[in-house]
Parts: sequence; C-alpha cells; structure tokens
Amino acid sequence: MQQTRLDTDRIRAARRVIDPVFLGTPLYRCEALEPGLGCAVSIKLETANPVRSFKGRGTEVVASLLAEHGPRAVVCASAGNLGQALAWSGRGRGLDVTVVASRFATAAKLDRIRALGAGLELVDGDHELARERAAEIARYEGIRLVEDSLDIETCEGAATIGLELVEAREQAEQAKQTGPAGLAEVAEPAEPAGTAPPFDAVLIALGGGALATGVGHVLKALAPGVEVICVQPLGAPAMTRSWRGRRVVTTDSTDTIADGVAGRRPIPAVLDDLLLVADDAVLVQEASIVAGMRMLLDHAGLVVEPSAALGIAAILEDRDRFAGRHVVTIVCGSNVDGDAYRRWVGAAALPHRA
Amino acid sequence: MQQTRLDTDRIRAARRVIDPVFLGTPLYRCEALEPGLGCAVSIKLETANPVRSFKGRGTEVVASLLAEHGPRAVVCASAGNLGQALAWSGRGRGLDVTVVASRFATAAKLDRIRALGAGLELVDGDHELARERAAEIARYEGIRLVEDSLDIETCEGAATIGLELVEAREQAEQAKQTGPAGLAEVAEPAEPAGTAPPFDAVLIALGGGALATGVGHVLKALAPGVEVICVQPLGAPAMTRSWRGRRVVTTDSTDTIADGVAGRRPIPAVLDDLLLVADDAVLVQEASIVAGMRMLLDHAGLVVEPSAALGIAAILEDRDRFAGRHVVTIVCGSNVDGDAYRRWVGAAALPHRA
Repeated sequence: MQQTRLDTDRIRAARRVIDPVFLGTPLYRCEALEPGLGCAVSIKLETANPVRSFKGRGTEVVASLLAEHGPRAVVCASAGNLGQALAWSGRGRGLDVTVVASRFATAAKLDRIRALGAGLELVDGDHELARERAAEIARYEGIRLVEDSLDIETCEGAATIGLELVEAREQAEQAKQTGPAGLAEVAEPAEPAGTAPPFDAVLIALGGGALATGVGHVLKALAPGVEVICVQPLGAPAMTRSWRGRRVVTTDSTDTIADGVAGRRPIPAVLDDLLLVADDAVLVQEASIVAGMRMLLDHAGLVVEPSAALGIAAILEDRDRFAGRHVVTIVCGSNVDGDAYRRWVGAAALPHRA
Repeated sequence: MQQTRLDTDRIRAARRVIDPVFLGTPLYRCEALEPGLGCAVSIKLETANPVRSFKGRGTEVVASLLAEHGPRAVVCASAGNLGQALAWSGRGRGLDVTVVASRFATAAKLDRIRALGAGLELVDGDHELARERAAEIARYEGIRLVEDSLDIETCEGAATIGLELVEAREQAEQAKQTGPAGLAEVAEPAEPAGTAPPFDAVLIALGGGALATGVGHVLKALAPGVEVICVQPLGAPAMTRSWRGRRVVTTDSTDTIADGVAGRRPIPAVLDDLLLVADDAVLVQEASIVAGMRMLLDHAGLVVEPSAALGIAAILEDRDRFAGRHVVTIVCGSNVDGDAYRRWVGAAALPHRA
C-alpha cells in the first residue's frame, strides 16, 4: 500500500489516550436483518456512548493533545456530531470549545452541544459556510481550529475502529480453526448453522472522509483482503465523485437527510488518502437510506441517524454484489430529531413529546 | 457477607467460557436523561449482541459445560429471552435445544427462537405452566432441564455483568485520583462540569432472580458500598413480596407488560441468595415502566423491552431517594413486538410493517 497520511503505530498510540467509554464497541452479527439483505451482516455499533456517535474517538485524541501542549481554546465547524464530541472531550479537560454549525443542523445535536457547555455559533447557510466561519474565528481569535478529516487526529481516532475490526476478525479466524469452546471432543465438528466466515467487506459512511480513510487505512494495512466500500448519498456526492474522478469535484448544493455526511467541498489531502484505501465508493438513494433506518429499527431494535443507515442502503441497492458474503456495517451515530425520525420511519409517526 | 450459592472465583472462571460478543458491554453516562430524573444515570447496555438480552452470558456457561461433559439435548422454559439465548449458545455447540414457552409470549421472541433452530413448544398458560411442562419433558425424555435462576450457571453468567461494573468503578475511582489524561499541568484541576462521582447504586430488573442475585453477589463481595436495588412490576410482585417477607410468597396471576420478569412462584434457593445481596426491592407501576421506555427512546435513542425500563421507572417513582446520586441501570433486553412497542410508547404509533 502506498503511504497515506496515517500511520498504524500512531493509531495504536492514539487509542491509549481515548477515554475507554468510546472503545471496544459492540461488534455482532444481526441475523434478524439477514433474510431481508441476503448476506451475513455484522453491526459495529458506535452509538452506545455519551455522545451517541463515533466522533468521540477523534475528539479525545485532539483534546488530550491540546490539554498537554496546545492552546486551551478551540473552535470547529460541525454538522453536530463532531461538535458534540469535542464539547464532551473538551469539558473533561478544561478546554474552551466553540462550535460553528448551520442553523439548519439537527436540533437535537445543537441542544446537546449547548448542554455540554460549548459555545455555539449558528451560520445562515450550510456546513461549508460553517467551515469558513470557524476558520475565520480561529484566525481572528488566535485559537486552534479543529478541521474534521483534515486534522490527522480526527482520522486516527476514527481509525481505532479499524483496529477493533481487525482484532475481532483475527479472533474469529482463530476460533474457526480451533472450533467453538467445548467442541473439542465432538467427532464431526461440522459447520454449525449460523456460523459465518470472517467478514470480507466493510461498509463505511463517507462524508468528510475521517471515518473512511481512518478505518480504510487500518484494513488495508492489516487485513488487505477485506473490501473497503464507502457509501454516500446521491444527494451529497462530492467526495464519491472526487474519488471516481481522482480529483476534487465540488457541488453547489446538497439534498439529503443524511446531515452528517452532507459536504460539498472535499479536502484534497483526504481525497488522496481515500484514493489509496477505498476499493469502491457508491451512491445511494434517499429512499434506501430510509429503508435502512426502518430495517435497523424493526429487526435490530436500533434507532440510528440517516448516515448510520448508509451501509444497509448500499446492500439494499446491490444485493447481488453482497449475496452470500459477510459484511460489516459501521452504525456511526444515533443523534436524530425525534419528529424527523418519526416522519422518516413511518407516516403515522409517534406523537411529539417534549 | 454470608455465603450465597455464588462464588466470585467461579464467576471469573465462567467469564472465560462466554463468547466475547456478550462481554465488555457498554457502560456510559447518559446526561440527556438526567434533567428528567434528577440524578446522574449510567446505562449498562445488554442489548447489542446477537440475542438482544443479557441471557447469552448464562447460556454460554450452561452450553459450554454441556458440550464438554453433559447430555447433548436440553430443554428450558422461557418467557423468550432465555430460550433465544440457549438456542444461540446451543446451536454453536451442536446441542439439541427445546424451548417451552407460553403461547402468550412476545411473538418476536418466539420467532427468533424458531429462527435459531431450536424446537419450540407452546403451552396454553403462563410462564409457570411452561416451567412445569419443561420439567416434564426433561423427566420423560431424560434430557437436561435448564432452570433459569435455579441453575447456578445462569446466575454466574449474569454475575459477569457485576464484574464489569466493579472494574469500571475501580477505573473511575483511579481516574478521579489522577485526573483526566493531560490535565496534569493545569494549576486548578477543579471538578469539570459533567463529572459524576463513581456510581453508588445499581438498579436491577427482578424476575426469577438470576440477574439480581448474580450482579448483587459480585457487588456485595467487591464493592459493598454500592446499593443493590431490585425492581419489579407491581403487577408481578411475587419475588419482591417474598424478599420483604423473608419467605416464599406466590401469587395467583400476573398483570404486567414486563413479560421478562412475570413469574408467580419464586424459587426458595434463589430467594435465600437475594436476601443476602439485595439492599432493597421496590415495585413500580405500569405507567412508570412505559414512561421509562419513552425516556430511553427519546433521550437515549434506545428501543428497550419493558423489563429493561424498570430501573428508570424506579427513579421516576422516587426521585428524592436518588437526587444527586449516580445510579447505574442495567438495560437488560430489547426484544419487543413492534406493534406492542408502538402502542406503549405512543398512541398514534408507527404503522405496522411486515
């Protein structure tokens, strides 16, 4: 593999500064999903933590470095999950955190950012305007700008998911060789029903690229046979088009419910890394994202935000590709507005509650 | 502490035979729940695994022993979660599993038991009749009867949750002494907002008693200052009344949506253990269970079954008792029928989907 900006040893080191509450997340097969998808599906669940997304892994790395060496004031642009995570990580280390977000961002995310004690500035535009404004604040106030996916710590944090996936896959391969505990004496250790081969593909939500380049780097370095498939909404295709064209392609607007991945201006250095680690980047329709959210609710009992359903959407749109395989999908966040969620997953939705 | 039937070293040994997919489950503070509850609340999440409940911990211990030494056919009575877990654990080890359940049991649980390849026999009565029928099958066919809460392996498996809670609490206490990573140089390491003291109470759903006696034993042995509070529905109060009366009290019927804990005939040996490890046993109303389910959905993004909301229900019914404290609630299962769940959490519920 050609060199990305990431380094596997640095990722291992990053893992040591991350609060354990974000690490060792559940990875489990969800057979109830499988009849509807035609393949073995394992979920890597990144929502059962204090900020309900994977972003805490990266902000822990950022904040621990700042607390040791850097300025104690920091600003980031965020669609909501990075801001919430940086607010959490910064609060625990006495950092002064400012988050810039679109005023159209998911209200539940903005509420949590405020509740965690961060300063919140809203811009009258989309996430790209929030990025500009955050950079402006950093320059004007001389404080640290955290740029998601560009700042290597955000990628290294996300990449620790890759370490966990690879370690689990190695354990599964070992267990396959020795057989399940207690089966040693059985004459015919036939493949028990429900046993799947170790996973051979990972579906990763693609937005700015921290998650995809981070996890992709680790997989390509340590489990190169595993297919790394990035998934983006058709309504926010800039990074996927850039990956396909091998050069930065921007778009004028986005149109997707998957707020967490709705960027328009890919970062060149992140694209370069993505070109080295992604085997594919696919675009999915909004209806498939909604169908994925419904399946995760009905068959896995999981409330997820739209970005976290991109992997299921990709399987739904290309069953033949995945038929008979074992696929991991990273369920990357669960921060949704209750009303919007109820609208998406069912027309006669749950009533509003304060 | 007087001797329960449990032994902490045996529980540590049990942990080594349990599939890791059931271990090391998330434990995290959920601040979004706290304004509504008036105390710090941490969730121990036992739903992110292949059977969506904590029961896999116990059935792994049962099945690994059987696979080594015992008969290869096994029967249990179950409200649904034990049966699902035993079906999963048995399948992986080539055991022949039969589950006896009430025909009124949660359909989603029965569907999963069938899908996992176990034999399923339904009785025209409640869980106590299923227990009788399972014992009858075991006697008649000469196969192993697994009795939840009575068989020590089911308690030892559940008790591994206690080990994880105690270990996390010790880590939290250490972190409190050294301060968060990277804060060493700060002149005034004042308590950062959002920091809670280590938990001082654990709320445990009480049914047959495996979870309560298992977790309770470990807490009393290794963290005796932590209050062990069992929670049962007012509509299925047999074990709580027995604990209060210090003798087995049975009831003629049950009336609760919390199917996982709806027993009528406590097991004397389990009650004896519970008397040694529980600091309190409280009864909660159905409306509080539903309110707890709603809060977990709205503020934690968690779909849970009624038994898993008993802890939140207990806080809602006695806020003064918990005010300002740090409470862990074990979210023990998420197997619900979609329609019933939608009916409970909102009148104009999500539409039915096949």
